[in-house]
Amino acid sequence: MNFDPEKIMQSAPGPYTMIGGRRYLYFMGTGYLGLHGHPEILKAACEGMMKYGMGSATSRRAFGNSQPILDVEAKAAQFFGKEDSFYFMTGYLSNSVIVQALDGTFDLAVADESAHYSAYDAVHLSGRPVYKFISRDPASLDAVLREQCTEGKRPLVITDGVFPVLGALAPLREYYEVLKNYPGSAMVIDDAHALGAVGPTGRGSVEQSGLPWETVNTNVQPDNGPRLFVAGTLSKAFGGFGGIVPGSKDFISHIHEVSPYFRAANPVSPGVAAGCARALELVMENPGMITQLHDNTRFVRTGLRELGIEVADTPVPIVCVVLETVEMMKKVQADLMKKGILIAYNPKYSDLGPKGGIRIAVFANHTQDMMVQLLEGFARAMKN
Amino acid sequence: MNFDPEKIMQSAPGPYTMIGGRRYLYFMGTGYLGLHGHPEILKAACEGMMKYGMGSATSRRAFGNSQPILDVEAKAAQFFGKEDSFYFMTGYLSNSVIVQALDGTFDLAVADESAHYSAYDAVHLSGRPVYKFISRDPASLDAVLREQCTEGKRPLVITDGVFPVLGALAPLREYYEVLKNYPGSAMVIDDAHALGAVGPTGRGSVEQSGLPWETVNTNVQPDNGPRLFVAGTLSKAFGGFGGIVPGSKDFISHIHEVSPYFRAANPVSPGVAAGCARALELVMENPGMITQLHDNTRFVRTGLRELGIEVADTPVPIVCVVLETVEMMKKVQADLMKKGILIAYNPKYSDLGPKGGIRIAVFANHTQDMMVQLLEGFARAMKN
Repeated sequence: MNFDPEKIMQSAPGPYTMIGGRRYLYFMGTGYLGLHGHPEILKAACEGMMKYGMGSATSRRAFGNSQPILDVEAKAAQFFGKEDSFYFMTGYLSNSVIVQALDGTFDLAVADESAHYSAYDAVHLSGRPVYKFISRDPASLDAVLREQCTEGKRPLVITDGVFPVLGALAPLREYYEVLKNYPGSAMVIDDAHALGAVGPTGRGSVEQSGLPWETVNTNVQPDNGPRLFVAGTLSKAFGGFGGIVPGSKDFISHIHEVSPYFRAANPVSPGVAAGCARALELVMENPGMITQLHDNTRFVRTGLRELGIEVADTPVPIVCVVLETVEMMKKVQADLMKKGILIAYNPKYSDLGPKGGIRIAVFANHTQDMMVQLLEGFARAMKN
Repeated sequence: MNFDPEKIMQSAPGPYTMIGGRRYLYFMGTGYLGLHGHPEILKAACEGMMKYGMGSATSRRAFGNSQPILDVEAKAAQFFGKEDSFYFMTGYLSNSVIVQALDGTFDLAVADESAHYSAYDAVHLSGRPVYKFISRDPASLDAVLREQCTEGKRPLVITDGVFPVLGALAPLREYYEVLKNYPGSAMVIDDAHALGAVGPTGRGSVEQSGLPWETVNTNVQPDNGPRLFVAGTLSKAFGGFGGIVPGSKDFISHIHEVSPYFRAANPVSPGVAAGCARALELVMENPGMITQLHDNTRFVRTGLRELGIEVADTPVPIVCVVLETVEMMKKVQADLMKKGILIAYNPKYSDLGPKGGIRIAVFANHTQDMMVQLLEGFARAMKN
């Protein structure tokens, strides 16, 4: 198909990104730690590619395991403070990995109406009834559960931890309280946009919300509260590619037994895996990256607020700005683009209102000067 | 997790493959053209990786298109004689891409009982009723359709084109005849093991069966026969990674509109894409590869038959051998392994009988000497 040549990406995404022949100051996408073009990661990826080839061409049941895949799983386990992890071909299937592993332990699914497509795919695939609740509304969740969880039916609640355009955190604590009333309940959090980016040590929205991390992705049923599960990806903050589910040894072994992605699919291309293993090491060697991302996020949010723009007060590096009119948002986006600064205006997205919204992605390696350019561009565009 | 170190793959899969510290003559996996470690492919992959980074960290709706992805799509279109194609993160989702694109055009799904997990995922996800028919049995398909397709209900039939362990071809012509009785019917063929390997020019089981290729993956409804759809992968014969669906311009545009894998997922890692683009070029520059694969397949099948072993007479590079007893098959596998030759004994697989079977994968770059070693090893193991 012919895509607009002015929109073709010509470099790794990063603070500066080549698009359509032009070098842009880039505040888009999901590479929150700014790692997708990191030379050490790319070097590791190439070395892995040269040694192990394009793929194993067989599943992991037999000879399809290679060291880069195992390295990613070991290092992700270390980063997340879990015993093991499962690394697979795409983050899109992360929710499915978990929901498949929970088969037989829930009777119905209840999903945030704005949850990601992949969350809906995962629960629809389970064959259980699927209900929706109003996005980020614990009272709505409560009402749906009251109505549907008759006769001790065990609900599986699924939600994004961080919504991809709005950047809002799901009210996980409130959901947790609601779910205490439903024995055997489970909460599955698609934390694609939060892992590596949100929470004091980058463990995502569960860490941010103060819920117990220890029982996440285990076979343990807490005495007083729902089971917690987190689905992740290495394609966003971590600068890599592929889905990741860290968890207890038992839980990961169970996934190996039941997941067709383990038994009947190729593992990730080994060069990509080698790059991801190095990326996870880099993040662990430099925990300051995550702190810097939080500082940058605060800087941009504060700066926008000083311009009189209403911005939510969250530590999420996705900053959503809804201005008075659609025209105003389009103008700001276009003006900034002319000045070589890219932000997104999304006219429509599941988690946005009727006007849509501007989405600004903050990276750990955006410098203060870059962020000042963004804020000044914003100020100029809104004045004219 | 701790995997058996003797089973860890330490090189690209190819005629010789390093596993657990030992170099094996390798007749396993799915790399039928022997390309996963081809130096030109790996060079292209590394160059792509260095230029475009680990991933676009954004979907293809906005700036997530890069030249390597577009190159793969153009070259796959060329190889398959189609106007366009859609390249996405994993072949596992290939059936889903097609079934999603057909939403609203079928009322129920009928699947070969031994079809791949991913075929079942695709039809279950559609939310339509799913029925099974006896594997490779047109009469069983006919019976199920007669029973279920009341009131003009339009069936979608889904099957593997080539079964992964048995190596059998689905009787597509017979299905096609059956489906002529059902207006609006569709047949979806998971041709993962056949594309690039089976058929005079490598277009897979549709080409092999002599069914009309022109209407495959188009929006055209043939006057007299079902619509035909083929789901593919670049991870097997083509020596690459990721799912591929070639098709008409209209059909691919429709996929762009409806597929969440286009709109809400990262495209394939660009280095991997660059490698795949080179792989497709190589196959087109050297059509002799495919002929060689067919010759090698005939050589191995004939050789086994000369040893008194019953082997199906098909051009599929997956040779399945079922010996008298499980013990005998285990012994042959173990004896060959001791001699440094790897074949698989699968005790259990959806397309196999109760004894399981030996699976031999033939590659285009297995030399005659290598195949003779395999056959001699077989002869020795069966004698002792």
